[in-house]
Amino acid sequence: MRPVLAITMGDVNGIGPEILAKALADDAVWQICRPFVVGSSDVLDRARVFAPGCPPPQPMAEFIEPTIGRASVLVADAGFAAPQVRPGSLDAQAGRCAVEWVEYAVRLALSGRVDALVTCPINKEGIHRAGYPYAGHTELIAEMTSSAAYRMCLFAGKLRIVHITSHMSLHEAIHAVTAERIAASIRIGCQGLEKLGIRNPRIAVAALNPHAGEAGAFGEEEAREIIPAIEQCRAQCIDCSGPYPADTIFRRAWQGEFDLVIAMYHDQGHSPAKLVAMDEGVNVTLGIPIIRTSVDHGTAYDIAWKGIAREHSLRAAITLAAQFAGAKEEA
Amino acid sequence: MRPVLAITMGDVNGIGPEILAKALADDAVWQICRPFVVGSSDVLDRARVFAPGCPPPQPMAEFIEPTIGRASVLVADAGFAAPQVRPGSLDAQAGRCAVEWVEYAVRLALSGRVDALVTCPINKEGIHRAGYPYAGHTELIAEMTSSAAYRMCLFAGKLRIVHITSHMSLHEAIHAVTAERIAASIRIGCQGLEKLGIRNPRIAVAALNPHAGEAGAFGEEEAREIIPAIEQCRAQCIDCSGPYPADTIFRRAWQGEFDLVIAMYHDQGHSPAKLVAMDEGVNVTLGIPIIRTSVDHGTAYDIAWKGIAREHSLRAAITLAAQFAGAKEEA
Repeated sequence: MRPVLAITMGDVNGIGPEILAKALADDAVWQICRPFVVGSSDVLDRARVFAPGCPPPQPMAEFIEPTIGRASVLVADAGFAAPQVRPGSLDAQAGRCAVEWVEYAVRLALSGRVDALVTCPINKEGIHRAGYPYAGHTELIAEMTSSAAYRMCLFAGKLRIVHITSHMSLHEAIHAVTAERIAASIRIGCQGLEKLGIRNPRIAVAALNPHAGEAGAFGEEEAREIIPAIEQCRAQCIDCSGPYPADTIFRRAWQGEFDLVIAMYHDQGHSPAKLVAMDEGVNVTLGIPIIRTSVDHGTAYDIAWKGIAREHSLRAAITLAAQFAGAKEEA
Repeated sequence: MRPVLAITMGDVNGIGPEILAKALADDAVWQICRPFVVGSSDVLDRARVFAPGCPPPQPMAEFIEPTIGRASVLVADAGFAAPQVRPGSLDAQAGRCAVEWVEYAVRLALSGRVDALVTCPINKEGIHRAGYPYAGHTELIAEMTSSAAYRMCLFAGKLRIVHITSHMSLHEAIHAVTAERIAASIRIGCQGLEKLGIRNPRIAVAALNPHAGEAGAFGEEEAREIIPAIEQCRAQCIDCSGPYPADTIFRRAWQGEFDLVIAMYHDQGHSPAKLVAMDEGVNVTLGIPIIRTSVDHGTAYDIAWKGIAREHSLRAAITLAAQFAGAKEEA
């Protein structure tokens, strides 16, 4: 049976509605899942101008399990405030709606009524203006699911990458290269991929310094932090190895030698990922009790509601969520 | 007329001789240049066991301009000590021969008897054991050509990358991100590519921090060092821009938007380069008065004289050198 995916619309002033309409115009999406949109049916209807193939939205007062077929798009929007669309505007109302939709969708996933959750982009500043303290989607979902140890995993074509840190200066990121953080990332990565159907994942840990530090000539972090973390995890029977020089590890992973790369800082992993995966990167949250995938881009206010935003990342996020849900059912 | 390329054999205990024989077994190489090998004819003859298509070497007492045709490979080896081959061994004698060959080839290039120089790998420790102080090929060539301001430029498929620093820890590399060093790299990159036939190169400068520092939230180096360097070079009518986030700049360059990327540290550029260019990366020395290309790998002692080393980088280095020599002739 095709899995049911709750797909949240995200910030209505961004590109969420139009990429959602475009993705739902693609018959291949309906072949692999039964979508249930959490957002505004009015807004989706407006966005259909950019995606004539998208079936008309059907507003629902509450969740109903979608049947197979694409006569209409079920949209849970009753009970929520209907947001006004102001393309490209930072807006507390849009932020509040986006958060409420995510909260509703997470409850659907936690109760097992949907098999997975796919999220369109929200704007951090928008949700802050609406009074929410979360740094983003992931923190909100982690809190709702009582998850203490979670990581984002970037799926980019054949590459899968967990970053030990993300949004901080490179200088701060170097100081955050600790055995504890690395070992936690390896463990979460291992367990997370196992849950998604990848058995005994082969995990490669990237070095921080060029040539993996060349035996200490170019830096001490490999010997002091990275190797102890790897040894600790190997003692726990995790198939992990490294540290490998960052200039060859992604090529090796791309060729199929590893299932997951642990990256030491933001650009180390994002740069190869964007190079090979074009617009089709997907973020997957590991370490939470539900399946959740997300687009790998922001609200893109500068191009919102012009019809030029590409839906490739959302389509890839839907595909992965459906695949993971299927793997879970088989397990 | 096909340009004459002096090709040095490199360290005889490494993979230089076999990749040289393999490259010379390829008729396409002979179609674009007239090779003149500087090395040992005996050693090349032995390496032909891995490349039966390589013409027999013809030892020369001194330089003679090669004619078109591949009846034999002209090899300048008279007057040099004949090195013993000890595969995979670090060896002062091999180091000394490698340096003497490079010195001879540089003199050929400086005097205009050859159009360009292509170098096979030498071993740094080997040349140190032979008593030479150079950190590598490039420092030797820079000294011989009285070049004070030079940079390596990595050519990797459609990517061209100049790194402002190379072999040092990431922590040290961050502290080496100075406006002066960046501006010098931009200028050398611009002038160097112009000399190689790329007019008014469009130069993109990478950021150091994620999201190019996100307006100072993730680091100050963009505002303090990188932007001033770019402004200084723009005032000198160089077409340079940035700083661009490192996770998209290489994709944009790959798609043809830029001719050259200035990278802030070793892995920032080498990682995308190795991902897209497979084994075909080439190092080109900018800022010297001769055309010089080099393989993008080391002596690989661990696989030397087994016949498994791939000659792709050398073939690409030969192709680029021939192309640059042709562009120079036309200019």
